[in-house]
Amino acid sequence: MYMNKYLSNVPLEEGLEKYLSVLKNSRVRDTEYIDIEESLNRMSSDAVYAKLSSPFYNCSAMDGVAVKSKSTFFANEQNIITLIEGKDYVEVDTGDPIPKQFDAVIMIEDILEKDNNKVKIYKPAIPWQHIRCLGEDIVEKEMLIPSFHNIKPQDVGAMISARIDKIQVFKEFKVGIIPTGTELIDRYTDPKIGDIIEFNSRLFEGLILDYEGKPILYPIVEDNYEKIKHSVLQAIKECDMVLVNAGSSQGREDYTYDIIDEIGEVCIHGLAIKPGKPAILGHIQGKPIIGIPGYPVSAWVVMENMVKPILRKLIYKDLETAKIIHAALSKRVMSSLKYEEFIRVKLGFIDNKYVATPIKRGAGTITSLVHADGVIRVPQNIEGIEEGSLVNVELLKDDNNIKNTIISIGSHDIVMDIINDELIKSSLGKVSLSSTHVGSFQGMLAIKKHESHIAPIHLFDTDTESYNIPYIEKYIEEDVAIIKLVRRTQGLIVKKGNPFNIKSIKDLVNIRYINRQKGSGTRILLDYLLNKEGIKKSEISGYEREESTHMSLAKAIQNGDADCGMGVYSAANIFGLDFIPICDEEYDLLLNENMLKTDYIKSLLDVINKEIFKEKVISLGGYNLDNTGKVIKLKRKVKVEYSN
Amino acid sequence: MYMNKYLSNVPLEEGLEKYLSVLKNSRVRDTEYIDIEESLNRMSSDAVYAKLSSPFYNCSAMDGVAVKSKSTFFANEQNIITLIEGKDYVEVDTGDPIPKQFDAVIMIEDILEKDNNKVKIYKPAIPWQHIRCLGEDIVEKEMLIPSFHNIKPQDVGAMISARIDKIQVFKEFKVGIIPTGTELIDRYTDPKIGDIIEFNSRLFEGLILDYEGKPILYPIVEDNYEKIKHSVLQAIKECDMVLVNAGSSQGREDYTYDIIDEIGEVCIHGLAIKPGKPAILGHIQGKPIIGIPGYPVSAWVVMENMVKPILRKLIYKDLETAKIIHAALSKRVMSSLKYEEFIRVKLGFIDNKYVATPIKRGAGTITSLVHADGVIRVPQNIEGIEEGSLVNVELLKDDNNIKNTIISIGSHDIVMDIINDELIKSSLGKVSLSSTHVGSFQGMLAIKKHESHIAPIHLFDTDTESYNIPYIEKYIEEDVAIIKLVRRTQGLIVKKGNPFNIKSIKDLVNIRYINRQKGSGTRILLDYLLNKEGIKKSEISGYEREESTHMSLAKAIQNGDADCGMGVYSAANIFGLDFIPICDEEYDLLLNENMLKTDYIKSLLDVINKEIFKEKVISLGGYNLDNTGKVIKLKRKVKVEYSN
Repeated sequence: MYMNKYLSNVPLEEGLEKYLSVLKNSRVRDTEYIDIEESLNRMSSDAVYAKLSSPFYNCSAMDGVAVKSKSTFFANEQNIITLIEGKDYVEVDTGDPIPKQFDAVIMIEDILEKDNNKVKIYKPAIPWQHIRCLGEDIVEKEMLIPSFHNIKPQDVGAMISARIDKIQVFKEFKVGIIPTGTELIDRYTDPKIGDIIEFNSRLFEGLILDYEGKPILYPIVEDNYEKIKHSVLQAIKECDMVLVNAGSSQGREDYTYDIIDEIGEVCIHGLAIKPGKPAILGHIQGKPIIGIPGYPVSAWVVMENMVKPILRKLIYKDLETAKIIHAALSKRVMSSLKYEEFIRVKLGFIDNKYVATPIKRGAGTITSLVHADGVIRVPQNIEGIEEGSLVNVELLKDDNNIKNTIISIGSHDIVMDIINDELIKSSLGKVSLSSTHVGSFQGMLAIKKHESHIAPIHLFDTDTESYNIPYIEKYIEEDVAIIKLVRRTQGLIVKKGNPFNIKSIKDLVNIRYINRQKGSGTRILLDYLLNKEGIKKSEISGYEREESTHMSLAKAIQNGDADCGMGVYSAANIFGLDFIPICDEEYDLLLNENMLKTDYIKSLLDVINKEIFKEKVISLGGYNLDNTGKVIKLKRKVKVEYSN
Repeated sequence: MYMNKYLSNVPLEEGLEKYLSVLKNSRVRDTEYIDIEESLNRMSSDAVYAKLSSPFYNCSAMDGVAVKSKSTFFANEQNIITLIEGKDYVEVDTGDPIPKQFDAVIMIEDILEKDNNKVKIYKPAIPWQHIRCLGEDIVEKEMLIPSFHNIKPQDVGAMISARIDKIQVFKEFKVGIIPTGTELIDRYTDPKIGDIIEFNSRLFEGLILDYEGKPILYPIVEDNYEKIKHSVLQAIKECDMVLVNAGSSQGREDYTYDIIDEIGEVCIHGLAIKPGKPAILGHIQGKPIIGIPGYPVSAWVVMENMVKPILRKLIYKDLETAKIIHAALSKRVMSSLKYEEFIRVKLGFIDNKYVATPIKRGAGTITSLVHADGVIRVPQNIEGIEEGSLVNVELLKDDNNIKNTIISIGSHDIVMDIINDELIKSSLGKVSLSSTHVGSFQGMLAIKKHESHIAPIHLFDTDTESYNIPYIEKYIEEDVAIIKLVRRTQGLIVKKGNPFNIKSIKDLVNIRYINRQKGSGTRILLDYLLNKEGIKKSEISGYEREESTHMSLAKAIQNGDADCGMGVYSAANIFGLDFIPICDEEYDLLLNENMLKTDYIKSLLDVINKEIFKEKVISLGGYNLDNTGKVIKLKRKVKVEYSN
C-alpha cells in the first residue's frame, strides 16, 4: 500500500562479496605519524628501522669482573691466578659497559677469592664470554618492525630501545553513526508517550570499538529528507564509513535509500536474513554507507554480520572466526525458507553436554542480546530444526562462563533474581544462575529431558490439593529431588484502591483480565479455581492475553491495560498495587537427584541458606521461608525421604 | 661473594597458589558510580534495576492501522469490513503508541484498500496482535544487569532504554610501575656509554592494559634504598598493586627484597622458572607488590605467568587459557632440571603441520619477543626435548597469521627484509616472510627436513668453484628447485679509510678479525680462501668470534670492536665502511619443487619480479639482478631444467 521501494533478498555471503568487490579499489587508507607511546594496538603503515643498536656498547651480562681473556688462559685448579684491580680487571655489574681493554667477564660465582683490589681465579675466561655485544638485541639501521604490523607492548619496548620517537601508522578508521527518527529523543530528555529513547547509537559505538574502528556519534536527525541528507554529507566528509540508523526499509518515512541513491550509489537493498532484512549497502565517493534497520536485534545482526566483516577488511585486519560449540536444541525452531535466520539462545552445560534453548522474544528486545549466550544460524533453505538436533552455536560469552552457570527453566519468581545476584556475589562473579521463564510444567519436562539443572515449580494438583509431588510422580521416572524454596502467597492483583471491588475469583467476569502463559503454575491454579466456581474460560475477557512474568503482568495492571490478573504478592507490592490473597503455594526447585552432589547445587544451597538471602526475600513481602533449603529425595518408586 | 640473600626455587604453580592464598582475604575492591556512557567493558559491582519499562507504552510493531479487535471479528473474504478513520482506526507506523481505545494492529500488507479516511479489511484482528506491549523488552523495577557483569555494548543500550543514568562499578585496578636503576635514562635523554634506555615500564604498561588493569607509571628511581622505599610507599598508597622493576635479585644494589621486608612481607623470593627466576612476591598492607627481574624477557615471563593470573584473579576475571597448537620441534632444546623453562619459538606451517624453531637469543633481547610466534614450556624435571618431538606451543600470534607466513631458514641478507616488507605491502598485511638466520648449510638441511618453505643459500663448492647446486646434489634426494635471487659481492669489510691497509685474505693475520657463525656461506667461503692461501685458522685472531648477520658484523667493525670481517657490500655501505671486494656469489632461494605451486611461492615470485623490489635492492649497492626470479628445477637424478 505505502510501499514505494522494492526490497531484494540477497543472501548474506553473496551480498558481502558483491559489496566488497564494489568497495575494493575505492580507497587507500590515510596514514599519520604518532609518538610511539601512543602506538599500542595501532598498525604500522611503513617499516621501522632501528636508529640505535641495543645494547649500543659492549656490556656485562653478569655481575662479576671484566678481564683480558689472554691474562687468564693458564688459570686452572693447580694454577690459581691473581688479578690486580684496574690493571687486570674492573668490577662490573650486569649491564655495565666493558672498558675497551677488556674482552671477557668472569662471573661472581667463578671467583675464588676477593680482597681489597685483588681477585683469584681458577679457570680461564673464553674471549667475549658473559659479554652482551653491541647489537646483540638490535642492530642500528636494521628493520625492527615491518609494515602492517599490529603494535604490541614488546614492540613499543623495542622501539624505545632503538630510539624511535615517532612511527607512521594508519589513521584510525572513523565510522560515523547517524540516528534518524522524529520519535527519537536522547537519554537526557524526559520521555512522553510516543517517544523512543535513542540507544542504538551507543550499541553501535560499543560494537565499532570492538571491531577496532573509531565511532563518531552524530546528533539525532528527524525524518526529513533534506536534514538527513545534510547529516550524511557531513559524516561522509568527516568519516571513512557511515551508518544511518533506521529509515532503511520501504516505509513512508524511510529516506535512506533515496538519499544514497541521489548522492551516491546503492549496491544492495534487502538481505535474505532475519532479523536484519531491510539493510542498505551503498557508497558515496567510494566510502561505504550502510542503512541499518531500527530494531536493535535486527541492527545487531547487520552490525555483526555485515558491518564487522567490511570494517575489518577495510582496516586490513582478520576477521576472527566465531567460537563455535555443538549443542542439543531443547526446543524445535521454525524458520522461513526465504531467509537465513539468526536465533539467539541461552546455553546450559548439563550432564557434560551443551543444551541450547532459544530465546523467544522479538527483534525489538535489546535484553535478548543482554541475555543471549550464543546464536544459531538457520540456513535459508531449511524450514526449521527439530528438538534434540545437534546445532552449531556461535558463542557470545566465554565458554567458562557458560560452564559455571546454573540453568533454571520453569516458573518465574522474583526470588530467582535474588538467588542469581547472591550466587554471583558470593562467588565473586564465577557462578551465576540463568533463568528461562516457560512455566512450571515445561520446567518439569526440562528436568525430565535433562535440559536444565533446576526447575522452579509450583504445580497444584487438583485431586490431592497439594503441590508438585503428585505431578512428579506422574510424569518423571528417574530419581529426583526437591529443594524447598519458599511458600508464597498467590492472589489477584488489582489497581490501587481496587476500583472494581474484586474480592474473589467470581468477580473476574466482566472486567479486563490479564493471564499468564499456558503451562504456568499460576494459570493451572486459575483454571482450577474457575472450574471450582463453575466459570467458563470464555467468560473471562482477556483470558487469552498472556504475560510470562509476575512483574510484567503487574506492570500492565498498573498501566491500566488490564484490571486484574493473578500473581504473587511481591509483584503487587513492588508496583504499589492492591492484592487479594487467594492461597499459599509451594514454590520449589526440582532437580535430578544426582545433581545434589554437584558444585552447582552446593553453591545454590549455600546461598539459599544464607541469612542475607532470607532477609532480602522477606523484605519483598508475601513469602514464608520456614522450609527453605530442605531437601526431599523422591526415589524411583517414590518413597519420600526427608533430609536436612 | 657479594650474595647477601638466599633465592628460593619455588615451582611456578606452587608459588602462585601460595601467594594467592596470602592475598586472598586481604581486600575488597572499591566501587564508584559512573555515567553509563563510560561503563563499556567495566564490571558492575551491584545489580542494576530498570527505572522505566521498554516500551513504556503499548506501541505498534508494524506499519499499519490500530483498530478495536471487536470491530473486526466478523471480517472475512465474503464479508469485507470498512473502517472509518478516527472512529474505527488510526494510522500507525512501527513504534507509534496505540491509543487506549484500540487493542490490535492490522499491518499494511493485510489492508485491502485505502482511500481518504477509510480502510477495507478482509480478516479479523486477534486482540493485541502486532502490538508491542508495555514492558515487552524491559519491565520497570526488574533486574536488568546482575552484579559482576562485564558491560557490553548491548548492556549500555539496554540501560539507556531503562533510563539508567549511572551505574555502580568496581574501580579500575591501578597497577603502579616503578623502574629502578642508576644506569636508567628515559627515552628523551641522549644516551651515553653505560646508560640504559628504560623501556620495561612501557612494556609493562601495555601488558597491564592487556590484562585489563590500569597502569600508573612512576618516574625512574636510582639505586638508593631510601629513594626506592619512598617511591614504593607512594605507589602503595595510590595503587592496588605495585611492580618494582629490577633490583629483584641478590646483587650489590638489589634493594627490593629488603624494602618489602621492612615495610611489608616477602612471601616468595625466587621462582623455579627460566628466565624470570629472581622474582619477588610480597605484600604491603595486603596490597601485592612484585619485584620483577630487569631483563625484558625475564620480566615478560614473570608478567605473563605471575602478574597476569594474580591481577585477573583480583579483578574477578577469568584467565583465558592460552591457545595451544602442536608443533614438531625443528631443533633439540636443552633445559635445566632445576627450572621450568620458557622457550620462545618461531612457527611455520609446512606441509600441513606446524614446525617450531627455537629463537636462540638471550633474556636481554626484547626483539626475541617481537619475533616470537609462541612459547614452549619445558617442565622442571625434563632435561631437554629431542628434535622432531611434538610439543605444545602457546600461541602469541593469531593462527591465521602464522599460516600466512612464508618461512625462510638459512643465510642472512638485507634483501630478505625487503622481500618481507614488499610481501606485506602487496598483500595488505596478509602474507609475510619470517627469516631465521642459521647460515646456508643449516638452511639447506631445513629444506631437506621440510622445516622451512624456502632457504636462502650461497654455498660455495670448492671442487667445482660453483655455487649451491653441487651441495644440493650431494645432500638432497628429493626434487627441489632454486629461485635465482641476487648475485652479490662478498668482500672484506674494514673501517673507513682502511687503517690497516687490508688488501686481501693474506692481510687477515695480525689484525682483530670478526667471523660469521659455523655453517654460514660466508664462513665456508673464508675457510676456502684461507686454505687456498695456506693460512691456518689459528693464525686469525678473532676467528672464533661469531656474528649471525652481515649487519651486526659491520656494526661491530664500525664500533671498533674488530678490524675486519667478511660480508656483503651493502652492509659495509649502510655503515659507511670501506670494502675490499673478494668475489661475486650466487644468493639463491632453495625450496622443494612442489612448493612452486603454492600461493606462498607465487606471492614471493610476484614480489621479486616487481620493479619496486629491484629498485630497492639496486639502491643498496653490491647486487646484480640479471637472473632474479628465474626458476631452476633440480630433479631427483639432477637433470637441470631451466625455465622462466
